[in-house]
Amino acid sequence: MDSTPLTRKLKAFVALTSVELEVLERLHQRRRVFHAGRDLVHQGQSEQAAYILSEGWVCSYKLQMDGSRQIVDFQIPGDFLGLRSVLLHTSDHSVEPIGEIVAAEVLVSDLLAAFAQTPRLATAVLWAVSRDEAMVVEHLVGLGRRDADQRMGHFLLELGARLKLVGLGTRAGYDCPLTQYHLADTLGLSAVHVNRVLRRLREAGLLTFRDGHVTFDDYDGLVALADFDPAYLDHTGPLLK
Amino acid sequence: MDSTPLTRKLKAFVALTSVELEVLERLHQRRRVFHAGRDLVHQGQSEQAAYILSEGWVCSYKLQMDGSRQIVDFQIPGDFLGLRSVLLHTSDHSVEPIGEIVAAEVLVSDLLAAFAQTPRLATAVLWAVSRDEAMVVEHLVGLGRRDADQRMGHFLLELGARLKLVGLGTRAGYDCPLTQYHLADTLGLSAVHVNRVLRRLREAGLLTFRDGHVTFDDYDGLVALADFDPAYLDHTGPLLK
Repeated sequence: MDSTPLTRKLKAFVALTSVELEVLERLHQRRRVFHAGRDLVHQGQSEQAAYILSEGWVCSYKLQMDGSRQIVDFQIPGDFLGLRSVLLHTSDHSVEPIGEIVAAEVLVSDLLAAFAQTPRLATAVLWAVSRDEAMVVEHLVGLGRRDADQRMGHFLLELGARLKLVGLGTRAGYDCPLTQYHLADTLGLSAVHVNRVLRRLREAGLLTFRDGHVTFDDYDGLVALADFDPAYLDHTGPLLK
Repeated sequence: MDSTPLTRKLKAFVALTSVELEVLERLHQRRRVFHAGRDLVHQGQSEQAAYILSEGWVCSYKLQMDGSRQIVDFQIPGDFLGLRSVLLHTSDHSVEPIGEIVAAEVLVSDLLAAFAQTPRLATAVLWAVSRDEAMVVEHLVGLGRRDADQRMGHFLLELGARLKLVGLGTRAGYDCPLTQYHLADTLGLSAVHVNRVLRRLREAGLLTFRDGHVTFDDYDGLVALADFDPAYLDHTGPLLK
């Protein structure tokens, strides 16, 4: 019953009972495959569904009037896609698969039914959404107050911690399908600047990002550089026993 | 029974029943007064409570290693304070009253009990948290992609829309206790730059911020300048009937 990344993730917050595990499992019934190059959710769209991502990576972004793109975050297995969009009627962002993904469609009525069966699950989902918000806050602080090297280090450490929680990464590193353009639009840098920053971090012996893999050459050194305190990701063990 | 700003706010999302109104009212039992200059919640603190703000304004911020401050958002009546901090064990930010405020303490156990009584309320709180996240996302896009005038216009329009929802503002304007230092630390500008931007917006006939009051001199003109689309604030009427 510990089969889905969402289950693995929520266990960090709540010691799930067998009833809660069953309810979570049922939320994964309508699994579908989606491909790169077509948005799951469009900015400005309404009446869309939310999804639970079980395989692959997804990019959430906003387009500005001038055509520039600000990437808000990436979603990895165990994350909700477009939950905010469903609750807020109109999507404030677009959601695009990076490569092929598998995601289960979830309707608001499914969520309500699940919450009615187990209110602890409602609190767990609230935890997950709060954690997403904490990450956006960190990205905000990154853009406002960190230099390019710190920003990159912080972002790649955060992804590592998130992937580790769902069993897809270790302190040594992780597979990462992102391109330099993804990193540029996330960190507010140009693609050329991204390359320069990655070279600097590699030459400093901190981090290597090559051939779709992030290697932490000096984890503690990178944590110190980026002032990375993972407390906001809350992987300290269940609050609700 | 329509007495609290939180009730007024949640009604935008869910048509509240009398049972739900009662449950909400009970969450406001432990009301306390707090004063400026003392944080309600400290960054790094654990075991703190969450609050529902009923009177006054509050500032949420993060301090960086170098001592600089990034303001993440302001809370106004009807907003939760520190809810994310409670759910995530450790607070990722500090919460400081601006002037005197009134807030009701809420424990996680209170929330769980409320959700058990009415799962629709859980969805409504999830909506409120998602809306908070949507605002942080807008601030992120603002820092990453908007120029100083657009950033200021967007931020003051957003505050206006939020205040209007809880009955504290109109299209003409609103009372606003923020200083130029608050605006600077929110928008990633210096205090001098904030003054210059406000003068420019006033001279363009768009907006006047003086003596604790924001006046929209040309609401539609400001909306056009800032590319402000309030859809992400979701004031379109209840999704859950």
